[in-house]
Amino acid sequence: MAKVLSGAGLRGQSAGETALCTVGKAASGLTYRGYDIDVLADKASFEEVAYLLLYGKLPNRTQLHDYEQRLMSLRSLPEELKAVLELIPESAHPMDVMRTGCSFLGNLEPELAFEKKPSLALHTADRLVATLPAMVVYWYRFTHDGVRVNTHNANVPSLAGHFLTMLHDKEPSALHTQVMNASLILYAEHEFNASTFTARVCASTLSDMHSCITGGIGSLRGPLHGGANEAAMDMIEPWKTPDEAEAALMQKLANKEKVMGFGHAIYSERDPRNDIIKKWAKRLSEDVGDDHLYAVSERCEAVMWREKKLFCNADFFHASAYRFMGIPTKLFTPIFVCSRVTGWAAHIMEQRANNRIIRPSADYIGPDHSEWMDIDDRH
Amino acid sequence: MAKVLSGAGLRGQSAGETALCTVGKAASGLTYRGYDIDVLADKASFEEVAYLLLYGKLPNRTQLHDYEQRLMSLRSLPEELKAVLELIPESAHPMDVMRTGCSFLGNLEPELAFEKKPSLALHTADRLVATLPAMVVYWYRFTHDGVRVNTHNANVPSLAGHFLTMLHDKEPSALHTQVMNASLILYAEHEFNASTFTARVCASTLSDMHSCITGGIGSLRGPLHGGANEAAMDMIEPWKTPDEAEAALMQKLANKEKVMGFGHAIYSERDPRNDIIKKWAKRLSEDVGDDHLYAVSERCEAVMWREKKLFCNADFFHASAYRFMGIPTKLFTPIFVCSRVTGWAAHIMEQRANNRIIRPSADYIGPDHSEWMDIDDRH
Ligand SMILES: CC(C)(COP(=O)(O)OP(=O)(O)OC[C@H]1O[C@@H](n2cnc3c(N)ncnc32)[C@H](O)[C@@H]1OP(=O)(O)O)[C@@H](O)C(=O)NCCC(=O)NCCS
Ligand SMILES: CC(C)(COP(=O)(O)OP(=O)(O)OC[C@H]1O[C@@H](n2cnc3c(N)ncnc32)[C@H](O)[C@@H]1OP(=O)(O)O)[C@@H](O)C(=O)NCCC(=O)NCCS
Repeated sequence: MAKVLSGAGLRGQSAGETALCTVGKAASGLTYRGYDIDVLADKASFEEVAYLLLYGKLPNRTQLHDYEQRLMSLRSLPEELKAVLELIPESAHPMDVMRTGCSFLGNLEPELAFEKKPSLALHTADRLVATLPAMVVYWYRFTHDGVRVNTHNANVPSLAGHFLTMLHDKEPSALHTQVMNASLILYAEHEFNASTFTARVCASTLSDMHSCITGGIGSLRGPLHGGANEAAMDMIEPWKTPDEAEAALMQKLANKEKVMGFGHAIYSERDPRNDIIKKWAKRLSEDVGDDHLYAVSERCEAVMWREKKLFCNADFFHASAYRFMGIPTKLFTPIFVCSRVTGWAAHIMEQRANNRIIRPSADYIGPDHSEWMDIDDRH
Repeated sequence: MAKVLSGAGLRGQSAGETALCTVGKAASGLTYRGYDIDVLADKASFEEVAYLLLYGKLPNRTQLHDYEQRLMSLRSLPEELKAVLELIPESAHPMDVMRTGCSFLGNLEPELAFEKKPSLALHTADRLVATLPAMVVYWYRFTHDGVRVNTHNANVPSLAGHFLTMLHDKEPSALHTQVMNASLILYAEHEFNASTFTARVCASTLSDMHSCITGGIGSLRGPLHGGANEAAMDMIEPWKTPDEAEAALMQKLANKEKVMGFGHAIYSERDPRNDIIKKWAKRLSEDVGDDHLYAVSERCEAVMWREKKLFCNADFFHASAYRFMGIPTKLFTPIFVCSRVTGWAAHIMEQRANNRIIRPSADYIGPDHSEWMDIDDRH
């Protein structure tokens, strides 16, 4: 008989093998293909990291240049996709928009016969890396500002810069590009988290890449997962001083509410991504002359550690960092998608390369036997 | 350290609890909330089974009548959704169409704040049960026949009849309605299969119902899962005699190809759904005066058992049964969706009622440590 090990949620239970990532092990506690996250966030561009995850190694200068050119050449959205985005109301959640945009693109550009052609999987992955930022910003600007943005930006090779340029109609400062680049690197990959696991379960049926990524977006949307950066912002937004934040937080803890942006399923003492994004949030706070949001965030961190030994995960300081760059809260989790699509795609290809359908069992807790009753005898 | 138990694919490993279904246990080998599948397929309507799964018990006469009325009142597709369906090319796969239609509907009718209102989850589930058949048939008929079908059919209360009426522009025979009804019951629920597990992983992040179902559709699409009924049809279609089928099948086995519609992750000797759908396939074969397809199918069954002790799963005789009713092969797996959405939704609500995020670990097989190299030093 099947047994539940280590509690619910498959916690601590291996669901397969990966060569992509370690979480909570050696060195900085997070590595992509063996590279420490600290080093990558400090030295690499997001495009280098995407290449590392998807193509297996860091690119040399020619490869990186070709890859950047390739991603740029794949940026444009088909007219039918733009028409669909324009049909989505302003009130929608942008994660629903991305889920739909990705799924719709699968109708126009299906990934066929991937078993015979792994190059098609890579092409589909690159195409999604290149278009997901435009999908969400195109819809956002169209419904909120009545503007049809240019999704090309031939002068802006980096995805970080491309996203911010589409959003703000001007090229971002060097600082903003740098922070966005680091943020995309931090979010790119994280082993068997819930959205990646969703994508792998889907891949294990030999479904196509668009189905797997669409599923990943749906899972990332949840507030216990990627949705936490947005939920954290909603929480801290009204707090105008550290003392006000502390009082409100104490009340939440007393009510046994979950505090978004804290805790982690695998890390038990710290999330290595926090130190990095926190430093950037501080730098941005100085840059914009913020007088309370960073201080409020730091107080939250102190209170949660003091009261519950809970630490900030990657999402908490992302909230203030994104706010300082003028990004609307609704677009926080979509940025996570623009980055994590690289990890998802790499996991999908890894799952396919050594596949068995992922089909667990369950412990049955229902009635042993129910006896059929004629409808007129039912109460 | 995490360990892989019972091989890959989480086979035989419990991933949680359920009161909805047993697979491979007592009695007929498949029960929904304790009721044997044989009894349900023989005596119930699909609407009764949907109610059983979603609302927890078999309805009495008033409840069933109200439920049928309710589903009928929820059938219409929003204009924006129709516009999106019309933008999808004829060449698309209908599973991609359904995945997109479900996702798009989530933008128009989001399931908000479900934690506070379980009634919203039920409403969303009912709405999807009522509209998924129309989504796929509307698109199919529009792109293939240039016709905008009526998605209401106020004279056809059963979902089985509604689907066939939209597809064929006329009310189906009593036999066809009966077979389609049984087919929908057989496909409604199957414990922690890959698509249901996808939906539960998504639900465990506290994402919304549309995200979970969209993910389920994407996983069901794969040929190792729901896609098998379509793949089985593609395989047997060219075989005009049992001997031809046997020769071709022997060749496939010699090539170590997977034969779609055979084998199962949990059942080891038989799939209880096969006896039921096989009987209906035989009956339909007589009804249409088929002179080879049923005989070909039976020979496949005999050969696979003789050579490999592999038995037909639910999908194999569904292929010929659907063909005899004049259903295009591309629509086979979509019918599975129209039915399984009930099981998915029931699992999503069950997961939410006792939730912990589903986040397994992985065995790392990548490089221990990779040393950063300046880009000009890379080869
Ligand atoms: C990330 C998370 C889902 C991990 O879940 P998990 O592995 O199931 O963690 P657990 O539920 O086992 O946490 C252990 C205990 O700490 C509590 N806890 C964990 N995170 C908490 C938080 N953010 N706020 C308050 N309490 C928290 C749990 O309630 C649990 O308490 P209990 O034992 O009294 O029930 C969880 O920490 C959480 O919900 N965090 C908030 C959402 C978030 O930031 N998600 C982004 C993750 S990158
Ligand atoms: C359903 C299915 C995915 C279950 O997968 P699973 O639990 O991983 O089963 P296994 O791969 O352990 O099967 C055991 C052995 O039988 C073989 N086998 C299983 N199903 C087979 C099939 N349909 N045709 C040929 N060989 C098959 C496997 O290759 C394996 O052989 P091996 O040990 O030499 O590698 C698998 O049987 C299959 O692919 N069937 C065809 C697709 C299908 O009909 N899916 C619908 C399921 S309802």
